[in-house]
Amino acid sequence: MQHLKHCQGLAQVFLIRNQSSRLSKSVIPSLSVWDGHLSCRWRSTGGHGRQKYFNNRLPKFRFALAGLLAGTGAVFAYKLHQDKVQWAATSAQLRVTQTSDLPVYTLEEVTKHCSLDSGVWVTYKGGVYDITEFVSMHPGGDKILLAAGGSLEPYWALYAVHQQDHVLELLSEYKIGVLNPESYKKQESANPLDPYSAEPTRHPALQINSLKPFNAEPPASILSDNYITPSVIFFKRNHLPVPRVDPEAYRLEIEGLPGGVVSLSLSELKSRFPKHTITATLQCAGNRRSEMNEVKQVKGLNWGIAAISNATWSGARLRDVLLSYGFGPEVAAKAKHVQFEGLDKDVTGTAYGASVPLNKAMSEEGDVLLAYEMNGEDLPPDHGYPVRVVVPGVVGARNVKWLGKIVVSDEESKSHWQQNDYKGFSPGTDWDTVDFKSAPAIQELPIQSAITHPAEGTSVDRSDGEVTVKGYAWSGGGREVVRVDVSVDGGKTWHVAQLRTSDQEQHPAPPPPPGRAWAWKLWEIDVPIPQRAQELEIVCKAVDSSYNTQPDTVAPIWNLRGVLSNAWHRVKVKVSEGF
Amino acid sequence: MQHLKHCQGLAQVFLIRNQSSRLSKSVIPSLSVWDGHLSCRWRSTGGHGRQKYFNNRLPKFRFALAGLLAGTGAVFAYKLHQDKVQWAATSAQLRVTQTSDLPVYTLEEVTKHCSLDSGVWVTYKGGVYDITEFVSMHPGGDKILLAAGGSLEPYWALYAVHQQDHVLELLSEYKIGVLNPESYKKQESANPLDPYSAEPTRHPALQINSLKPFNAEPPASILSDNYITPSVIFFKRNHLPVPRVDPEAYRLEIEGLPGGVVSLSLSELKSRFPKHTITATLQCAGNRRSEMNEVKQVKGLNWGIAAISNATWSGARLRDVLLSYGFGPEVAAKAKHVQFEGLDKDVTGTAYGASVPLNKAMSEEGDVLLAYEMNGEDLPPDHGYPVRVVVPGVVGARNVKWLGKIVVSDEESKSHWQQNDYKGFSPGTDWDTVDFKSAPAIQELPIQSAITHPAEGTSVDRSDGEVTVKGYAWSGGGREVVRVDVSVDGGKTWHVAQLRTSDQEQHPAPPPPPGRAWAWKLWEIDVPIPQRAQELEIVCKAVDSSYNTQPDTVAPIWNLRGVLSNAWHRVKVKVSEGF
Repeated sequence: MQHLKHCQGLAQVFLIRNQSSRLSKSVIPSLSVWDGHLSCRWRSTGGHGRQKYFNNRLPKFRFALAGLLAGTGAVFAYKLHQDKVQWAATSAQLRVTQTSDLPVYTLEEVTKHCSLDSGVWVTYKGGVYDITEFVSMHPGGDKILLAAGGSLEPYWALYAVHQQDHVLELLSEYKIGVLNPESYKKQESANPLDPYSAEPTRHPALQINSLKPFNAEPPASILSDNYITPSVIFFKRNHLPVPRVDPEAYRLEIEGLPGGVVSLSLSELKSRFPKHTITATLQCAGNRRSEMNEVKQVKGLNWGIAAISNATWSGARLRDVLLSYGFGPEVAAKAKHVQFEGLDKDVTGTAYGASVPLNKAMSEEGDVLLAYEMNGEDLPPDHGYPVRVVVPGVVGARNVKWLGKIVVSDEESKSHWQQNDYKGFSPGTDWDTVDFKSAPAIQELPIQSAITHPAEGTSVDRSDGEVTVKGYAWSGGGREVVRVDVSVDGGKTWHVAQLRTSDQEQHPAPPPPPGRAWAWKLWEIDVPIPQRAQELEIVCKAVDSSYNTQPDTVAPIWNLRGVLSNAWHRVKVKVSEGF
Repeated sequence: MQHLKHCQGLAQVFLIRNQSSRLSKSVIPSLSVWDGHLSCRWRSTGGHGRQKYFNNRLPKFRFALAGLLAGTGAVFAYKLHQDKVQWAATSAQLRVTQTSDLPVYTLEEVTKHCSLDSGVWVTYKGGVYDITEFVSMHPGGDKILLAAGGSLEPYWALYAVHQQDHVLELLSEYKIGVLNPESYKKQESANPLDPYSAEPTRHPALQINSLKPFNAEPPASILSDNYITPSVIFFKRNHLPVPRVDPEAYRLEIEGLPGGVVSLSLSELKSRFPKHTITATLQCAGNRRSEMNEVKQVKGLNWGIAAISNATWSGARLRDVLLSYGFGPEVAAKAKHVQFEGLDKDVTGTAYGASVPLNKAMSEEGDVLLAYEMNGEDLPPDHGYPVRVVVPGVVGARNVKWLGKIVVSDEESKSHWQQNDYKGFSPGTDWDTVDFKSAPAIQELPIQSAITHPAEGTSVDRSDGEVTVKGYAWSGGGREVVRVDVSVDGGKTWHVAQLRTSDQEQHPAPPPPPGRAWAWKLWEIDVPIPQRAQELEIVCKAVDSSYNTQPDTVAPIWNLRGVLSNAWHRVKVKVSEGF
């Protein structure tokens, strides 16, 4: 993390942001992003107790939380009220914004307090706050210093996580004065627009888990209506605001090859390399996290079962591009990873980033694409326009969108999302004991399936004799789904579902070569309704070509980040007697 | 299956056996093997009822059982007494062998009844039996006709499965006469030696699941004492008698390459290609089948948890060999599989066989070896001397021993073991509904782990404060074991075990490249004994690099062949209060 030891006014931070971005020419606007967060353990204790609490835990929080929740809106899921602190929201808001008898400061005076040496002052809606004491307690780490001597609003605009009553309440404890009216006016006019003001329009069917950044999934009931998920309802998982990229100015940089840095335009990428098309399912590591939350609260967006979708992707093979620019045995002898950087950046200029193992990137059978089309059209802005990497069989997080840079390296991406997020842990590991270095970054995902029909809590009519059950199944690493078992009695007896590899009016896709089954299978089965059952517990579980199976229950795979939630999916429905 | 429509004396069958074997020159002795079997449904009902029973089921039995149990000694596991038929063993034996008032036949008369047209007579210990009616009921299919007109003994010698009282009882129902003394004496002298008489000496520690063919596992308690399993206690899984191969006469044939059939001597294999060494774990598909048997009886050897072992293997890379003899793009465009044939053959001359996908065989990262050394020495006879294929990450059954032939093909092996065995099915699939074509041949195995210490039913001393738990963990497909969770309270709370990748006095092995973790990990942990626990239910579950996990329980993965048994392993021990 970058320590800001010298003062720079907030306005300056924003003025220099474009210069600090090596790729900024093509990014409109480039964005300064603050990844400060709150912890669910943040209690309204006195300042001293709080200080002690955070001092004890801060190193772990830094690793665990700095950036961890960046852009996830995860605090929505924290439900801080679980700590049973009832905040007086209105009064807190008032305390922050009301006029008071506190001293009046100019913006210049505030700007001088922009370091731990000089004290850390910030402003919020005309109030002035001395947060020097709080800096070491900030779960997001010392990036909070980026706001030192200036206004919090631009940062809070980026992460809706801060816009909650208890945050305002906490802030109010540090209030030391107010800005004079001229300063406030000047500051207001200098503040940038909402970084999310240029977000694309989204389909109204999407169920939104977080608005800023945008994270949403389609209703489960419509997910399996299409083998190829329409782009507009394909689940959206953004970590930062969507960068608007000028396709004419776009450049893809490639580092780590013998000839030095390559800079490739969009038209060059499209014209110099053969266009390949694959059908591949992407799944968020947090898909079905809500079921883990039912066992015990985890940190992360509360995804249902639809943070997974299937599309066709067209673009250049990463392998072809790297070979064309000098990848050869001497690189292969040293390199072990291929890193990707997005054009979506945080306030330090650090891009969203991830990496995949070199053998996946370079294998003829890896099918890794620098994709510029999704379902036959230009990538939509939410899915990485103009170019994203599609790493089929691998967790969504490595399929970096708005791809700005590729680095062939002997090291994994240093990105927070590679190092300190998107990893799995034992159910016995908590935030006090977790060591992110002890677990590998998630790459291939395990076998998964879920029921999209019927919905939980609905009824089936006994006179129908049967219940139609539908869903999806998919496995990572190109392992083909070979069977889906369905039970309507909670797993006592099982029936084998019919699998489908195309939309119903289409011919089935030919069987994929071994290890290259990138796309999900939809499944369906009519199961007899047991005679005396009043309620059905419908369960599904899938098997992949390595005969991996899903675990029976959620609790034994529970993990503190709520990833890799792939236990049997269970849906309870009533049996109605009809009329 | 081969129908024998014309008569040939039993002696002739044995005389021609060497000529019928294309590879017989190097096989001493080559073996004629009959894969007739018995079903656990075989009851002592009247002939008509039995006929009807088998007629109804025979087509399925043929697919399901013909050869299915070949050489598995599986009927040992059938425990036919589960049918609650108590056979009068002694009296049955007497009825078969005693002199009687039945007609006396010469061997020549028997020999004439060697087809369905002429009637099917066989002899056993001087008795003559007309089994014409039984042929269609024989679960092993019409291979029973190979014994027509002659003696059963050579076939029954091959498969100990027949040497049970109820088989003799059944046979006795078809008795029509006795051989005259001269014929009997002549026949006895013509009968070949026990095909298993030349089996190698085995280590006394091995726990034998079937003697003929030999199938055995080491005691679980010593399995994890060594990271590299000593060859003598490495689990043995033979489908047929061990062929004794003369290394000077040995030839490995390779078909399916542009230059025609290649014939390679052992010294050529060793001298023409670089020698590579890998450490790889092999596991039988039936490992831990006994736990499935506890849920509901399955067909197959009743393996415990030790049908898995780890060794170093040295040999030529299959890839290098195939490339050297003309494998190139034009072959790759057509071929999809590489088939292997052993020198162990059944009576029709059909070799034990299996195949693996071409991409596994040819990938630089597949590490498929034509191995001639195990743990630094020549392969032992039980492990395929002089050459076996080692397909790391893939089920033992594809690691063909006594390798005689390699065929590059557009088709999978037609072998029974590839087509109608070693496949997984839903728990709801039974022998009446199974369709072997509906499931893929097992290749990569799923994540696995088991507890080798303490043993079930033992005690731990409360005063020790802790219980030391040890075991192994492995996953197929080169997926590295990344974590093993251990519980002593039946899965309520979990502890993370220490993993080990070498013998204790050795340096740990360097981490394998991604997707090439062929060797198991041993693990160990000291877990505190819960204060009030009278009994501990110790449980382990492993996680691989694709974050696949083991299912919680056995019943939902139960399948009619009892393969792929990889639920959490559970061991119960008492807590003793000590003195």
